Amino acid sequence: MTPRRERRYRDALVAALRAGYAVFENGGSSMDAVVAAVVVLEDTPLFNAGRGAVFNAAGEHELDAAVMDGATGRAGGVAAVKRVKNPVLAARAVMELTPHVLLAGAAADRFARDAGVPMVAPNYFSTRARARALVRARARSRASAAELHGTVGAVALDGCGNLAAATSTGGYTNKMAGRVGDSPLVGAGLYADNATCAVSATGHGESFIRAVLAHDVVARMRYRGETLALAAGRALDRIVALGAEGGLIAVDRAGHVAMPFVSEGMYRGHARGGRYTVAIHR
Amino acid sequence: MTPRRERRYRDALVAALRAGYAVFENGGSSMDAVVAAVVVLEDTPLFNAGRGAVFNAAGEHELDAAVMDGATGRAGGVAAVKRVKNPVLAARAVMELTPHVLLAGAAADRFARDAGVPMVAPNYFSTRARARALVRARARSRASAAELHGTVGAVALDGCGNLAAATSTGGYTNKMAGRVGDSPLVGAGLYADNATCAVSATGHGESFIRAVLAHDVVARMRYRGETLALAAGRALDRIVALGAEGGLIAVDRAGHVAMPFVSEGMYRGHARGGRYTVAIHR
Repeated sequence: MTPRRERRYRDALVAALRAGYAVFENGGSSMDAVVAAVVVLEDTPLFNAGRGAVFNAAGEHELDAAVMDGATGRAGGVAAVKRVKNPVLAARAVMELTPHVLLAGAAADRFARDAGVPMVAPNYFSTRARARALVRARARSRASAAELHGTVGAVALDGCGNLAAATSTGGYTNKMAGRVGDSPLVGAGLYADNATCAVSATGHGESFIRAVLAHDVVARMRYRGETLALAAGRALDRIVALGAEGGLIAVDRAGHVAMPFVSEGMYRGHARGGRYTVAIHR
Repeated sequence: MTPRRERRYRDALVAALRAGYAVFENGGSSMDAVVAAVVVLEDTPLFNAGRGAVFNAAGEHELDAAVMDGATGRAGGVAAVKRVKNPVLAARAVMELTPHVLLAGAAADRFARDAGVPMVAPNYFSTRARARALVRARARSRASAAELHGTVGAVALDGCGNLAAATSTGGYTNKMAGRVGDSPLVGAGLYADNATCAVSATGHGESFIRAVLAHDVVARMRYRGETLALAAGRALDRIVALGAEGGLIAVDRAGHVAMPFVSEGMYRGHARGGRYTVAIHR
């Protein structure tokens, strides 16, 4: 990675943190904040979510996203949508406008359109870098770390003590059509519970589903009284045991932040009291 | 329910148990057994899975199913498939033939067809009773208990100490097109882990997703050392706290069976040493 490229990633992370923090300055909730931050990351072509999402094996983009509200335990998600500009907004609409938690496929696109969520043509998501990645992926068998870790997410704690989590992703390059990863799945890719913490995960989705990663962090805090840092680290140990890579961002009810990862690096950052910190490498 | 109707349910439960048990007599695994039992329940028009599945709001059938292998932690699922005769077979094919855990929508149907799983026309699933239920559901707002609890599932422990779980469902009458419930979601509708137990759940899917019900049972055993019976009961307490109904079937590594429910009744049964026990009411 060149210094110029690294600067672009850092700027994008700060922009997302600013968007989330601005919500708080305007009296918004943690749910408002995580959605605002994820929208910025979706709109940035650098990350594998929204614009800049990877191509699947059919040469298409299929996007997953979810939100969870730690105050109410309510959640919403969409899987394999193809035309929603900001999948995280469709996920929030599922939570707020339907009795359901997850909608998938073409019906999820139709729901989002009917709910007034902005729609785009499928090629809106396409970038030259991701098209080249598909060509490379078709010539080998495993996805590269850069593709696995482009999933975006946000967690937040607001002044009322409410936690929230959000995720958004394009999955990974050359995934099968119809593949759903951990990102839209409550318990796997995200969880939020005011009594413990909010978690948003990124990495090899199938392993995160099998480990029920986000809920494992919560369960360790709830049932063993582990700290957030310990619970997050131990939960990721299971990912390592499955031979996979990834990481997570989390904040607990007391405001402690944990951002562990078992991979070369993870684009990450946090904001507190108007101060922004971002990092990429260890 | 008339005595004749109750007899039909009891006969179907025994047939499923016999199919599962026959697998063991022929040296099969717990995975083979749960799939064999669920196939029988899918083929029976009495239950809300496979033939006899409910209609969604679009007047169609969209089916969800999953399997999980407690020995390896591998899992497979399909969501919102429309043409797979036995969704549990498609779920197993996802586990065995792909690098993925979950496939959704039309692409999942295409995968199943390519994998050699038997396909049917969508009206194969239709029954007069479910069509009438849709008409009734459209005239009110909430699904009835009978529709919520028609989901089928199986858990098993084999002679090698391997646990397995399976689920299959049509969702609930008048659900939105594209809605994915807990049944195909690892951690929510099912979980299997040789170190603790295998769980298969039925009930109000959205609540089971938010509670990450099946993994909650496992986490309580793993992190608090609760017995299966205690963990299963406490996990269902969360469902009650969410204002929902449902139940689960589970077996632990030592062969203890728990089948608690928080609803009027639950079609259930178990087989051990060639003896079959079935029940419907408390």
